[in-house]
Amino acid sequence: MTQLNRQWRLTSRPVGMVKKSDFEWRESPIPTPNQGEVLVKQIYLSLDPANRIWMNEQDSYMPAVVLGDVMRGIGLGIVSESKDSHFSQGDLVQCMVGWQDYAVLPAGALTLIPKGLPIPMTTYLGLLGHIGLTAYYGLLDITHPKEGETLVVSAAAGAVGSIVGQIGKIKGCYVVGIAGSDEKCKWLKEELGFDATINYKTEKVAERLKALCPKGIDIYFDNVGGEILDAVLGQINKKARISLCGLIAGYNVERPNPGPYYFPNVLVKSAKIEGFIVTDYLHRAEEAVKELGKWFIEGKLKFRVDVVDGLENAPLAINKLFDGSNQGKLIIKVFEETD
Amino acid sequence: MTQLNRQWRLTSRPVGMVKKSDFEWRESPIPTPNQGEVLVKQIYLSLDPANRIWMNEQDSYMPAVVLGDVMRGIGLGIVSESKDSHFSQGDLVQCMVGWQDYAVLPAGALTLIPKGLPIPMTTYLGLLGHIGLTAYYGLLDITHPKEGETLVVSAAAGAVGSIVGQIGKIKGCYVVGIAGSDEKCKWLKEELGFDATINYKTEKVAERLKALCPKGIDIYFDNVGGEILDAVLGQINKKARISLCGLIAGYNVERPNPGPYYFPNVLVKSAKIEGFIVTDYLHRAEEAVKELGKWFIEGKLKFRVDVVDGLENAPLAINKLFDGSNQGKLIIKVFEETD
Repeated sequence: MTQLNRQWRLTSRPVGMVKKSDFEWRESPIPTPNQGEVLVKQIYLSLDPANRIWMNEQDSYMPAVVLGDVMRGIGLGIVSESKDSHFSQGDLVQCMVGWQDYAVLPAGALTLIPKGLPIPMTTYLGLLGHIGLTAYYGLLDITHPKEGETLVVSAAAGAVGSIVGQIGKIKGCYVVGIAGSDEKCKWLKEELGFDATINYKTEKVAERLKALCPKGIDIYFDNVGGEILDAVLGQINKKARISLCGLIAGYNVERPNPGPYYFPNVLVKSAKIEGFIVTDYLHRAEEAVKELGKWFIEGKLKFRVDVVDGLENAPLAINKLFDGSNQGKLIIKVFEETD
Repeated sequence: MTQLNRQWRLTSRPVGMVKKSDFEWRESPIPTPNQGEVLVKQIYLSLDPANRIWMNEQDSYMPAVVLGDVMRGIGLGIVSESKDSHFSQGDLVQCMVGWQDYAVLPAGALTLIPKGLPIPMTTYLGLLGHIGLTAYYGLLDITHPKEGETLVVSAAAGAVGSIVGQIGKIKGCYVVGIAGSDEKCKWLKEELGFDATINYKTEKVAERLKALCPKGIDIYFDNVGGEILDAVLGQINKKARISLCGLIAGYNVERPNPGPYYFPNVLVKSAKIEGFIVTDYLHRAEEAVKELGKWFIEGKLKFRVDVVDGLENAPLAINKLFDGSNQGKLIIKVFEETD
């Protein structure tokens, strides 16, 4: 029986891939909540590409994690003890627990999750959580896909990408997914209904795009940046829209990459590149959750999770997002659901 | 008396700056119009940064000029002979005459310009022509400036940039112009009412932007790309809008420049970069011409032209757009207005 709060604290800024030695493992007493606060026991910890940015020294849309602090992360947990009238022991909540077993948080920082629905608990850390919202608004609000348009998605087998491609199909687009293994490509085509796929590790992306998108590219949902963004920019149609969701290719590099060489095409093609952050859309979460939930129950949207056991594995598991080995939404199981 | 049609024909693709030897000077008979066509005698030829792109091998939003053909260009001219009922001898028209004295064009390719208004004829090749439309829609339609926002304009003393900055002031923005000489900067501040200026040839742009834009940059109207775009991207605010009008810094280079190093800020700041082409807005020209004309007559908008005498000087004069020596809209006077 663990009676201590196990934590991963960030002790140095990773260079390139994340190493265990960038963190310190500490076991300290479980904190107690004050008035208006809640103690949450984490069941699932979400590992996301943005986590890697927060480890860097520079602030991004969230401040950098301070050296010595517990690593930041979104989690799904159970209320262990509540000093706030809005929450009771046993409630299922989503919040920033971080890379630790327990956290005390102000009640306002928690989102209550309905229990007992016929939906796996992990769905709330994904399809019906920040991942689903990211895919939904990043595609629909930024690019306004129209029937018959060609949509390309990178990191297509990732959590966000796999939903984006499926929403693209629901909206009548011709959808091409770029992923990092034949197994992933097969899954995208056979299980998720993508029209075509490219394995960027074994195929030449620019050439394959040319072959697979004879009418050019109208929409690109970009999770990676780098060379793939460039390959797409070289083949965009007039009035193309590019939704920038992530630039994974640049997260681990030691000095900034140059931007795309085909950048002038944004001008030549009257195209648009727009970045967004899911937090800008939280006030509209209800619409997305309703639509995504409906599509999920109708079987139009499938969602896969890649659950890694044990908080102790977080520092190495996060590299799966960058070496292409994760298969679906990457989640750390901190405690068993029934614990 | 010239009875021949003098022409500049593109004979090789310029490398770097344009050389006279990239063109062939030819004098051939003046062509005659067939039914539905019009013979136009050019008075003013507009020299624009886009001309340089058309000289390259790669097609852009317009096809590359074919080697051996007359160089393409927008002109203002007088109808010499009309075989179409919509035009009469003596009418003032705007059309793609190209780098030559005379052209025969289908009537549908001409825009009739009202004569006798108390406005200099060159205004129609600028403020009330494609230049004004470019500034008007490129700023207002792409970036939606709001009162109190910080607007940065590059090539601010250029034809488009000088109008953009003045519209920015009309809309209540704090406007910073970047230009290539102290004389230009002085003109922007003292004559056009810009709030601040940067001489990019003698000052460090990134540092000066930091000093001059303490609240960060909300809008950037980009005529140049390259290092200045990068300096701006490093200082954009959340939800910044960047209107890509030109990327002059890249037009003369022999191999493509990389895109901006600060490109990831587009993601981090939920920003937008959007390119546009004035031809997308021709169907809405009336609104812009009305507004621009009103502001011009009210004295809120000033417009300067840089007229170079003689068609023979076109190949060298166009370099003025790239070495920073032009002062206002660059125009070649082909014939006297009264000829």
